[in-house]
Amino acid sequence: MIKVGIVGGTGYTGVELLRLLAGHPSARVTAVTSRKEAGMKVADLFPSLRGRIDLAFSTPDEARLQDCDVVFFATPNGIAMNEARELLAAGVRVVDLAADYRIQDVAEWEKWYGMSHGSPDLVAEAVYGLPEINREAIRGARLVANPGCYPTAVQLGFLPLIEAGAVELSSLIADCKSGVSGAGRKAEVGALLAEAGDSFKAYGVAGHRHLPEIRQGLGRAAAQPVGLTFVPHLTPMIRGIHATLYARLTADVDVQALFERRYEGEAFVDVLPAGSHPETRSVRGANVCRIAAHRPQGGDTVVVLSVIDNLVKGAAGQAVQNMNLMFGLPEQAGLGIVPLLP
Amino acid sequence: MIKVGIVGGTGYTGVELLRLLAGHPSARVTAVTSRKEAGMKVADLFPSLRGRIDLAFSTPDEARLQDCDVVFFATPNGIAMNEARELLAAGVRVVDLAADYRIQDVAEWEKWYGMSHGSPDLVAEAVYGLPEINREAIRGARLVANPGCYPTAVQLGFLPLIEAGAVELSSLIADCKSGVSGAGRKAEVGALLAEAGDSFKAYGVAGHRHLPEIRQGLGRAAAQPVGLTFVPHLTPMIRGIHATLYARLTADVDVQALFERRYEGEAFVDVLPAGSHPETRSVRGANVCRIAAHRPQGGDTVVVLSVIDNLVKGAAGQAVQNMNLMFGLPEQAGLGIVPLLP
Amino acid sequence: MIKVGIVGGTGYTGVELLRLLAGHPSARVTAVTSRKEAGMKVADLFPSLRGRIDLAFSTPDEARLQDCDVVFFATPNGIAMNEARELLAAGVRVVDLAADYRIQDVAEWEKWYGMSHGSPDLVAEAVYGLPEINREAIRGARLVANPGCYPTAVQLGFLPLIEAGAVELSSLIADCKSGVSGAGRKAEVGALLAEAGDSFKAYGVAGHRHLPEIRQGLGRAAAQPVGLTFVPHLTPMIRGIHATLYARLTADVDVQALFERRYEGEAFVDVLPAGSHPETRSVRGANVCRIAAHRPQGGDTVVVLSVIDNLVKGAAGQAVQNMNLMFGLPEQAGLGIVPLLP
Amino acid sequence: MIKVGIVGGTGYTGVELLRLLAGHPSARVTAVTSRKEAGMKVADLFPSLRGRIDLAFSTPDEARLQDCDVVFFATPNGIAMNEARELLAAGVRVVDLAADYRIQDVAEWEKWYGMSHGSPDLVAEAVYGLPEINREAIRGARLVANPGCYPTAVQLGFLPLIEAGAVELSSLIADCKSGVSGAGRKAEVGALLAEAGDSFKAYGVAGHRHLPEIRQGLGRAAAQPVGLTFVPHLTPMIRGIHATLYARLTADVDVQALFERRYEGEAFVDVLPAGSHPETRSVRGANVCRIAAHRPQGGDTVVVLSVIDNLVKGAAGQAVQNMNLMFGLPEQAGLGIVPLLP
Repeated sequence: MIKVGIVGGTGYTGVELLRLLAGHPSARVTAVTSRKEAGMKVADLFPSLRGRIDLAFSTPDEARLQDCDVVFFATPNGIAMNEARELLAAGVRVVDLAADYRIQDVAEWEKWYGMSHGSPDLVAEAVYGLPEINREAIRGARLVANPGCYPTAVQLGFLPLIEAGAVELSSLIADCKSGVSGAGRKAEVGALLAEAGDSFKAYGVAGHRHLPEIRQGLGRAAAQPVGLTFVPHLTPMIRGIHATLYARLTADVDVQALFERRYEGEAFVDVLPAGSHPETRSVRGANVCRIAAHRPQGGDTVVVLSVIDNLVKGAAGQAVQNMNLMFGLPEQAGLGIVPLLP
Repeated sequence: MIKVGIVGGTGYTGVELLRLLAGHPSARVTAVTSRKEAGMKVADLFPSLRGRIDLAFSTPDEARLQDCDVVFFATPNGIAMNEARELLAAGVRVVDLAADYRIQDVAEWEKWYGMSHGSPDLVAEAVYGLPEINREAIRGARLVANPGCYPTAVQLGFLPLIEAGAVELSSLIADCKSGVSGAGRKAEVGALLAEAGDSFKAYGVAGHRHLPEIRQGLGRAAAQPVGLTFVPHLTPMIRGIHATLYARLTADVDVQALFERRYEGEAFVDVLPAGSHPETRSVRGANVCRIAAHRPQGGDTVVVLSVIDNLVKGAAGQAVQNMNLMFGLPEQAGLGIVPLLP
Repeated sequence: MIKVGIVGGTGYTGVELLRLLAGHPSARVTAVTSRKEAGMKVADLFPSLRGRIDLAFSTPDEARLQDCDVVFFATPNGIAMNEARELLAAGVRVVDLAADYRIQDVAEWEKWYGMSHGSPDLVAEAVYGLPEINREAIRGARLVANPGCYPTAVQLGFLPLIEAGAVELSSLIADCKSGVSGAGRKAEVGALLAEAGDSFKAYGVAGHRHLPEIRQGLGRAAAQPVGLTFVPHLTPMIRGIHATLYARLTADVDVQALFERRYEGEAFVDVLPAGSHPETRSVRGANVCRIAAHRPQGGDTVVVLSVIDNLVKGAAGQAVQNMNLMFGLPEQAGLGIVPLLP
Repeated sequence: MIKVGIVGGTGYTGVELLRLLAGHPSARVTAVTSRKEAGMKVADLFPSLRGRIDLAFSTPDEARLQDCDVVFFATPNGIAMNEARELLAAGVRVVDLAADYRIQDVAEWEKWYGMSHGSPDLVAEAVYGLPEINREAIRGARLVANPGCYPTAVQLGFLPLIEAGAVELSSLIADCKSGVSGAGRKAEVGALLAEAGDSFKAYGVAGHRHLPEIRQGLGRAAAQPVGLTFVPHLTPMIRGIHATLYARLTADVDVQALFERRYEGEAFVDVLPAGSHPETRSVRGANVCRIAAHRPQGGDTVVVLSVIDNLVKGAAGQAVQNMNLMFGLPEQAGLGIVPLLP
C-alpha cells in the first residue's frame, strides 16, 4: 500500500482526495494536515466520510510527511513552492494541486500570482500533470504540477485541432462556465448561495490566472505562441466545468474522426457521437472529460464542447491518475466511480 | 415626503428597504450609512439599483440622521440599543429591524443574545411591530421593534387558533424552513452555494433566538405561557420561509372559517381556499403572508402552512408597513409590488 | 385606460404580462384566453396574482378580443399568423410575442419553424419591436413582432460595434446562456429540476431558431450579411440571459465611449462602467439590458457582456414597452419595477 | 455472478440500480427493459453510464427475464402485482421497488392506490424489505417489497423510540422534506426547474400514499395502532429526504444511548453524536441513513432528524441491500460508495 499524505485537507480538493482515496485499492491516507483544524477528526468536519476515514487533522509538523510515499498539496498557491523541496529530498514524491509549478516561465508566474517564487529551480524539474499529453514524463516524475480545472477542460478540447494543424492559432476563444466549488471552500460574500444562486455572470475578463497556463499548453502543442481569448463565468451549480471552444478551421477536416483518433484508448477522455451536447452532470463525481465537436451549418468555425467535474478530472481525480502513473499502478486504479446522475 | 435614514445599508434587509422605498410615493431615502463602504455609491455595490438611487454610503456621523423623520436600523443585533436614544431625543422615529427591542423580558433577551442590553428602559416603550395584532399601538409609537422573520410566519399562523382558544397550548410545534438570505449577507462557509446548495438540514434544534420571541407573542395572545417546539431548517433557496405548524384541537372548530374571519380586511394576510398548499414563490418579493389551514383526515391535529418572503413581510416590507402606520399613510403605500413568479 | 387582451395566458410570457400590467397606470387587462383552462380564475392558477387580477381565463371566442385596444399573443409559434388578421381588421393593434412575424424572409422562416406561414403579406407590414433601433416605426405600427429573448440580448450587445463599422462581420460569435424559463411552462423531461438542476449544457449547436433572427437584425445594421456563430446553453437558474459576444476589431476604437454614446438617453439599456461584469440577477424582474464591453489585455478582440431578464426585456416587458410607444404613452409607463436582488 | 434483470430502466430508480450494480462485485445486469426505449443503448439515454454498461433496453418479452436470478421492478405502481407471479414460478427472486406489495391490508392498499390488486395472495407472502427490522425474513424471501423513501427515513427515525415504549403513540408527527427526484423522471409542470426551483411547499397534507405504509410499520413495532400526522414537502434540490420527527416522551430516557444501542452494528444506519444536525448531502449517493436525536431544552418532546438519499437507501440502494441478503452475499457488497460532498 502506498502511504499518502495530504497537506491542506479542509478544502474541496482535499476532501475530494479523501473521497477518492477511500476507495483506492493500493493507497492509504496516513496523514492529513490542517493548521486550523488540527486535532479534529476529519469525519467530524466532513460527515460524508464517517466510517470511511478515522484520521484526525494534524499540524504539518506532527504529520511526519516524510514517512509518506507521496504527498498531495491541496493548499492555496504559494505553499508547495516552499515545502516541496524538503519532502523531495526525503524521497517523497509530490503532486501539487495548486499552481506553483505549472508555469515554466517564472517571471510570468510571478506576474500573474503576485508573489516571488520560492523554488524557481524546481519549476524546471516539475512535470505538467496532464496525462493525455505527458504520460511518459509523469511516470518518471518526482514532482508533478497538477493542471488547473479550466486548463484541463480547454486543453483537452483544443489539442486534437492544434496538434493536427487544423485551426488558426491567432484567434482561439474559450468561453468557460464553472460551478462554484471552483472558488474553494472559503468564506466569501460572492460565493454565498444568496449571491451566486439563481444568477449567472462572467468574471476576470481582463485576465484570469489560468490564461497563461492554457496558453503555455496550447503553445507547446502548436510549437508556437497562440492567441487566446479566455472568459470564465460562474454558473449556479456546485460542480462542473463546461468549456465552449471556438476556432477557425484552416482545412476541411473531419473533426469527429480527428477527435476519436486522438483519444482512442484514453480511459478518461470520452469523445461523444457527432451532434452531442455533453452535460456537466454526466461527469459529476467522476474522472472523465466528455467532448463533442461541432461544425455548425458546415461552416469553417469549429465549436468544441468539453465538460469535466472541476474537482475530479479538474483536480483530485487527475492527481490520483498522476499518482497511479508515478507508482506504476494501473492508471484507472481507484478511479472507477460512476457519475452521479441525477 | 418623509425623509428616511437607513443605518446599515449593505446587508439584505438594507438593500431590500432601498428596493421598496425606491417606489414609495411618500418617502425618500436621504441617508444610508455603512462604516465599511462609506463613500461608495450604493448602486455600485448593488447594480440592481442603478438609476434608482443616487446616494453614496456615508458614515453614521456624516449622515445627519437627526434630520430624518424616521430611521431604520438594518444592523446586526446590539447596535440600535445604543444608538436609538439620541435619535428619539431629536424627535426621529425609529424602526429596529434587528432584535434589540423585541423581547420585553430583558434578562431573557440577554441570555439568548449573549450581551447586556444598552437601553432596558426603551424596551418597555418599544412597540412590537406586527400590525395584525398591534396596529393601534404602532400608529402612536416612537420606537418600533420589527418582528423576526420566523416569528412573523409562525405567529400569523398560530394566532387565530390561540385567540379562539381552540388548541392545546402545551405542545405547539413549529417546523420552519428558510431560504439562505435569512442568514444575512455575511461571508460564512456554511452559507456558500457549494455548501448549502442542493442540500437540506435543520439547525439550532437545541434553541434558536427566535424561540423566546415567538413564545412571548403566542403567550400574550393566550394570556398564559405556551409550550412550543421550534425547529428551523435551511433550504436551498434564496428567499422565503415556510412554517408548518402543528397543534391539537380542543374543540371541533371550522378552522377555515376561523382563519378567514380573523384576517378579513387584512391587506397583507391572505387565507387560501381550503385544501391549498402555499408555495414560497407565491410571495417572492411581496409583503404578504399566505396561509392555509388543514385538518388531515378530519382528525384533531390542525396543520397550518404559512409562507412569507423573509426579507419583505419578514423584515423590510413589514418595516415599511410599520412606517406607513406611524406616519398616518395608507398602510399599503409603496407595498403594491406583485410577487415575482416564476 | 387601454383595454388589453392576452391570448395564451397560461405560459410564462402570459403570466409575466399579467404581473407587469397589474401595475400599469394606463392599461387594464380585460381578457385572458386559454382553451385549456377556460373558466378557471387566473389567480387560482397563479396564486402570486391573488388580489391583483380578478379575471378568469376564457376561450378565445368568449373573450371578445375585438373590443380590446391591443392584443398580445403569448402563444406558441404559428397562432398569431392565423389569428392576427381579423383583429387588425377590427382596428385592434397586435403585439406577437412569438416568432410569426419576426423574419422578413418567409421562406427562411418556414425552413426554421417547420410550417407554412399563414399570413406572408402581414409579415411585410409587421414592425420588428426592438425600440432601441426601431422606435419611430413602432409608434406607427398596427402589428409588432416582439423580438426573441436571445436576439434582444445579442443585438443590443453587437449593435454599437456594427453600426460604427468597428468589427469584422464575418466571424461574430455569440455564446449565450439562458435560465430554464426560456423553455416555457411545458411539461418536458429535460426541463425538470432533477434534470436541468445543478448541471450545465449547450444545445442546438447545429442551429437554433434565433440564429436567422439575429443574423437579420445584425445584417440590417451592417447593411450586408454577417457571419455569426450562435451557441445557446441552458444554465440552472430560472430567469436571465447572459450573452457573451466576441468580435475582432478593425480599428482601435474606444469601446466604452462607443457604447455609452450609442445608448445615451435609452431608458432600458444600461452601459456599465469599464471593467464591469453584469450579473443576470441585477436585472431580475426588470425591463433593462445591462452591458459591459471589454478588450482583454488591450488586444483586438472585443468581448461584450449583455444581460437581460428573458421574460421581461426579452419578452413581456419589451412588449409593454412597445405598447407604450404604439399608444403614445411614456415609454417607461408601468415598467418602473426595481430588480429583485437577492 | 448473479444475473440481474431490471424492469423499467428509464426512471430514476432504474438508472440508480444501474449505477450501483455497475460496481457490484457479484452481480451483473443482463437485461433492462423499457417498452418505450426498446432498442436504444442504455448509455445513449444516460451518458453517465458510457463505458460502464453496454446493454440496450429491450421489451419485457425479449428480455428473457426468466433467465435472471433476480428481477428488480423499477416500474410505476401496478406493474409488479401482475408480472411477478410468472417470474416467481420460474424460480426468479423479485424485488419490487414500487408499492404493490408493501401494504398487507389489500383493501387499504386499493383505497390509497386507486386500483384493484392483481395478486392479493402474493401480498401475504411478500417480505417488507427494511433490513434493519426484517433481516432474517428477507434472507429467505422470494418476493421483497422494497420500502418507500419517506417510510424508510421515518421508520428508522421512530423505531428505537417505539420499540422502547418511550413515546406517546397517539400523536406522532413526521414533517418530511424531499428533493424532486422523488417525483420520478416524468414530464410534469410542477417538477420543472422553473416551477420547483427556488421555492418550497408542502403537498398531500390531506393524505399521502406513504402514510398507511408508515403507520403499518410503526404499528407493527408498537404492536398497536399509532396516530401519525405526516406532512411531505418539496424542497428545491435533486436528491435527499430530511425527516423531522416529533414525539412526546413518556419516560425520561437517554435518547442518545437508546439510538446508539438500537443501531449498533448496523452498517447503513449512522447515529450521529448528540447535538448534531445531519445534512442530506452527507448521504448523497450513498446507502446510509444518518440520524440525530434531540430533546430541545431538556423537555419532553423528542425531535429526531433522519436523512437518506431517496434514490439509494430510499430505493435502489436498499434494493441491492435486500438482494445481498437474499443471495447470502455480504450485506455491504457493492454499497461502499462514499457520499458526494460537496
